[in-house]
Amino acid sequence: MNERNSKPAVVLLSGGVDSATTLAIAVHQGYRCHALTFDYGQRHRFEISAAKKVAHALGIVNHRIVKIDLTGAAGFGKSALTDQIDVPKDRRSLQLGRSLLEDAPGGTSGEIPITYVPARNTIFLSFALAFSEVVGAFDIFIGVNIVDFSGYPDCRGEYIEAFERLANLATAAAITGKGKFRIHAPLLKMSKGEIIRKGLSLGVDFSLTHSCYDPAPNGDACGKCDACRIRLAGFAQAGVEDPIRYRSR
Amino acid sequence: MNERNSKPAVVLLSGGVDSATTLAIAVHQGYRCHALTFDYGQRHRFEISAAKKVAHALGIVNHRIVKIDLTGAAGFGKSALTDQIDVPKDRRSLQLGRSLLEDAPGGTSGEIPITYVPARNTIFLSFALAFSEVVGAFDIFIGVNIVDFSGYPDCRGEYIEAFERLANLATAAAITGKGKFRIHAPLLKMSKGEIIRKGLSLGVDFSLTHSCYDPAPNGDACGKCDACRIRLAGFAQAGVEDPIRYRSR
Repeated sequence: MNERNSKPAVVLLSGGVDSATTLAIAVHQGYRCHALTFDYGQRHRFEISAAKKVAHALGIVNHRIVKIDLTGAAGFGKSALTDQIDVPKDRRSLQLGRSLLEDAPGGTSGEIPITYVPARNTIFLSFALAFSEVVGAFDIFIGVNIVDFSGYPDCRGEYIEAFERLANLATAAAITGKGKFRIHAPLLKMSKGEIIRKGLSLGVDFSLTHSCYDPAPNGDACGKCDACRIRLAGFAQAGVEDPIRYRSR
Repeated sequence: MNERNSKPAVVLLSGGVDSATTLAIAVHQGYRCHALTFDYGQRHRFEISAAKKVAHALGIVNHRIVKIDLTGAAGFGKSALTDQIDVPKDRRSLQLGRSLLEDAPGGTSGEIPITYVPARNTIFLSFALAFSEVVGAFDIFIGVNIVDFSGYPDCRGEYIEAFERLANLATAAAITGKGKFRIHAPLLKMSKGEIIRKGLSLGVDFSLTHSCYDPAPNGDACGKCDACRIRLAGFAQAGVEDPIRYRSR
C-alpha cells in the first residue's frame, strides 16, 4: 500500500467488479476511504452484502449503507432493477464483441436499456458529495466506465466532468475556498478485462463481488443479463476464471 | 390560470414562502405540477405538513414525500437543521438591512451558517431529476433566491446553471434526444418582499406556510432564527402582515 497520501476519500461501492476495483485503487493510492453503498430498492439486493464483504476485505473502517427508495411504489422506478419488469436476457444489442473483445470502449447501440434507473448516479454522487463535506474529503471515486456504459448516460466522461463542476459550486468550500472537489473515475476508459486484471493485481477477491441483475434466491448469478454477460466476457478477456457461481451456463 | 401550457413540471416544495410562491408561478404558467417534498430528518418537521397544505390549496394532484436521512445518525448531518446543534438566533452577520430593505440582493458575509445542510439542494434536485424522468417532465422548479442565499452555496444562479447542464448529460434524454431539461428558478433575483407580493397576487395563502428553523412544539415560529428574520423583514417590506403565529416578538 502506498502511504504517500493520507487524505480522506469517499468511494461509491455497489459490490460489483468495477466498484471493488475502484475501491482497491483508492486504497492503493493511500486514501483513507469512506465507502458508500445504496439500498435503493434494487431487486438484486445481494450486491449490498457483497459490498459489505468487499469493504471488509479491503479494510475499510467507515462503510455506510444509505437507504433511499427509487422504486415505483415511491414514485420513482420504471426500471427492471427496481420494479416488476423482466430483466432482459441475452440482449442482442449488447455489442459485447465490439466493445469488449476488441478492447475498444464504446458501449452499445444508443438505446437506453430497461435496467436504467432514472438519474441514479446523480443521486448517488449527490449523497457522496454530502458525505464528503461531512468527513472533510474532496476526493470522490466512482467506478463508471465506458464499456459498462451499455447505454447508460450517467457513465460517460462528460457527465463526470459536469458533476465535478457542479460539486465545486454546490458546497461550502465553494464559498470558503477550503478545497476543490475531484471526481475520480479511474476505470473510465478501461475494458472489463483490464479492470479485472487491475483488481487482481491489487488483491481484490472477486469471489466476494456480485454483478447479476436477476440472481437466484441463493444468490447464484443468471449468466444471461447484461451485467452477467459483460462480467463473463471480461473474465474471458482477462484470461482468468470468474470465481462466482452461476445458475446456468 | 393560464392554460397555454400543459406540460408536466416537477416543483420542489418545502412548505416555505419561496417554494409556495414558486409552485404558484408554475401553476400560473400552466404546467401540470408534480410537487416533491423531502422528509430528510429536519428538526422543523412542521414544514412537511405545511407543504401538504400548500400543495392541496394549489390543487396539486401528485405530491410525493421522499424520505431520506441526512442526519448525523446516518453519517450525514453536521447541521443545526438535522442535529442537536443550537439554531443561531439574532445572528449579527445576517445582513438584513442591506440585502432586504434596500432591495439589493447579495446575501451575507460569506460565512457558511451552521444551518447549512451539506449538498442538500444537489440531493433534492437529483431526486427531482429522477422524478422528472419518470413523469416525463423536462421542467424543474426550485425556489432559490439570492436574498435567501444567506451564505448557502447551492442557492446561486451559477449553481443552478451547472445543475441544468448536468441534467442534460445525466439522463436518458441525453442519449435519445427527446427533450432538454430546464431548471427554473423564478425567484432567483427577487427580494423577499417581491416574492411575497408575487405570491399574494397569485393567491398563495401564506398562513399555510412554515419557515422557522426552531418552532415551538405547537408549531409557533421563534421569530429569531435566520429563516424567521428573513421572512418577517420580507413581510414588512411587502407592507403586509405575516399571517402565521410567532412564539415571541
